[in-house]
This record gives sequence, C-alpha cells and structure tokens, in this order.
Amino acid sequence: MKNDVTSLRRLKTIEGHLRGVIRMVEEDAYCIDVIRQIQAVEAALNKVSSQILENHLNSCVITAVRGSDKKERERVLKEITEVFDTANKV
Amino acid sequence: MKNDVTSLRRLKTIEGHLRGVIRMVEEDAYCIDVIRQIQAVEAALNKVSSQILENHLNSCVITAVRGSDKKERERVLKEITEVFDTANKV
Amino acid sequence: MKNDVTSLRRLKTIEGHLRGVIRMVEEDAYCIDVIRQIQAVEAALNKVSSQILENHLNSCVITAVRGSDKKERERVLKEITEVFDTANKV
Amino acid sequence: MKNDVTSLRRLKTIEGHLRGVIRMVEEDAYCIDVIRQIQAVEAALNKVSSQILENHLNSCVITAVRGSDKKERERVLKEITEVFDTANKV
Repeated sequence: MKNDVTSLRRLKTIEGHLRGVIRMVEEDAYCIDVIRQIQAVEAALNKVSSQILENHLNSCVITAVRGSDKKERERVLKEITEVFDTANKV
Repeated sequence: MKNDVTSLRRLKTIEGHLRGVIRMVEEDAYCIDVIRQIQAVEAALNKVSSQILENHLNSCVITAVRGSDKKERERVLKEITEVFDTANKV
Repeated sequence: MKNDVTSLRRLKTIEGHLRGVIRMVEEDAYCIDVIRQIQAVEAALNKVSSQILENHLNSCVITAVRGSDKKERERVLKEITEVFDTANKV
Repeated sequence: MKNDVTSLRRLKTIEGHLRGVIRMVEEDAYCIDVIRQIQAVEAALNKVSSQILENHLNSCVITAVRGSDKKERERVLKEITEVFDTANKV
C-alpha cells in the first residue's frame, strides 16, 4: 500500500477524534453524546476502509487476477469476500 | 449470475422467514422478539450478498480485469468498492 | 405491539421487494444489481426495526421502568442493549 | 456518566490499537491486513457503545421515565431510537 497519504491523514484525524471521545468520558459527558461521537468515529473508519479497498482493487487485485498463479488469485479474491462479510457485521 | 441455485434457495428461505415476521406483527407479538427476527433476516441476507459477491469476483471480475477494455475494468472494480461501502452502512 | 399498522405495511412492501430480488436471481440478473437490491431490503428492514423499537420504548419500557418489579425492569432494559448490540452487527 | 472506568480503559486500548493501524499504513502494510485491523477497531468501539448505552439505560433513562417531565422523557426515549438507528448504519 504505497504512499497512501490520504488514508494516513484521515486515520490521524480519526485518532484525534477518538482522543476527544476519551476526554468526553473522562469529563463525564452525557452518555448519548459519547455514543454519537463513537458512531461518528466508526463512520469515518468505514470511509478509510473503502478507500484502502479501492486502492487495493486497482493494484494488487489487478496484478493477481492477471498473473498466472491460480492459488494467489484465489487467495486475493477470497480476501475481498472476507472483508465484505466482516463489513456487514461491524 | 448463472444457475446460482444456493443463493436462490437461501433467498426463498428468507422470504419464508420474513412472512413469519409479518405474521408475528399481525398477531401482536412482543416487539423485541419481532426486532430479533428482523435482525436474523438481515444476517441471512448478508450471507447471500457475500456469496453472490464471491461468485461475481470469480467470474465477471476476472473477465473484466483480464479484458482489454479499461473503462469496463474500472467500472467493475468501482462497483466492488460501492457495495463494500454500502455493506458498512446497512 | 398493538395495531402497528405502519410496520405491517412496510414489512409487506419489503416482502414484495424481496420477491423481486428472487425473480432477479431466477432471471440471471447482474450480480451487483442483486447485491444492491438486497442492501436496499436491509436498509428498509432497519427502518422497520427502529420504528418498532420506538413504539416499544413508548409503551412496554415506560410501563416496566415505572413498575415495581425490579427483575422485569432489568430484563426490559437488558433487551434494549441486546438489540442495539446486534444492530451494530447486522 | 460517572466513573465509567471500564469504558475509559477500553477506549484507551482502542486508541493504542488505532495507533498500530496508523503505523501499519506508514510502513506500507498489506491493504487487506489494514482493513481487517480497522474492522477490529470498529468491533471494539461497538462493544464500548453497547456498554455506555447499558449504563445510560440503568441511570438517566430510569430517572427520566419515572420523572414527571413529559418533554424530558420523550427526549430521552427518542435519543435511544436515534442511536439504534445509527447503529444500523455504521
């Protein structure tokens, strides 16, 4: 995953957001406000995941699918289904 | 999506499950029990989606990625990111 | 869950939607279109769940929380957390 | 949300986990491994949300439902539906 500057920047923003959530809990913020901020962090993480997947499809997946190694191709495609499956659950 | 017998059978089972949920609401079942059954229907739908995606990756996606039509390849890969993105939301 | 006419009507609409999805699979529709329709069905089911929960909170939960039966109150509140927990997963 | 030591400890662990994800991206880790770790962070955040909701139900919600302020009760119950609704989406 070379030079994924956008994902990196977003993840660092999310880290700051999460530290804000921790501060809210330390300062006894209202529960529902904390839950809403946690959900906002999760929505932001989803966006990063989608972006990383997009990069992955346009690099590693293309290489593997065009390559002659059947095992490798099957592995790479199986991984896509697996993260999709987990995306449905988290 | 040729002859996807397993997905078809599962979807018909889910249809039966959903009719059961409708019957529960008609018979004034306990709210939480209804919600739990709706969530079970959703979990079952997620499984079908994953399976259809797996079939798709192993057929159309391989064809598109190996093909010479750049536009088509980009379209097919973009769709994967889109359904992944939506999977994070439903 | 008395006379929940809106939820019932919505669920019947969703049943029709799901039958449409089954027809798509029978007619070998494009995989991604099928997945998108399944995701639309799930989004619609989420809306019904939310509505049923809202009704539940404004009836059974109020009764249980105001009642004198501690066990019952704890049970009713625990159920809310449980369906919330599952909502995060499906 | 008084003294929610467990949620606080968990959130700090998740912060460490997220920093690990950032490091992975900085070190060009394999895309799918990064996505999996992001999904693990999200699953952990879901657990914290559920716990905070549980605390909330057993404190603020009980107080509001038993109180005589109808507006306040409606507000508190509405919030539960809202975070449930969002839980279905993130």
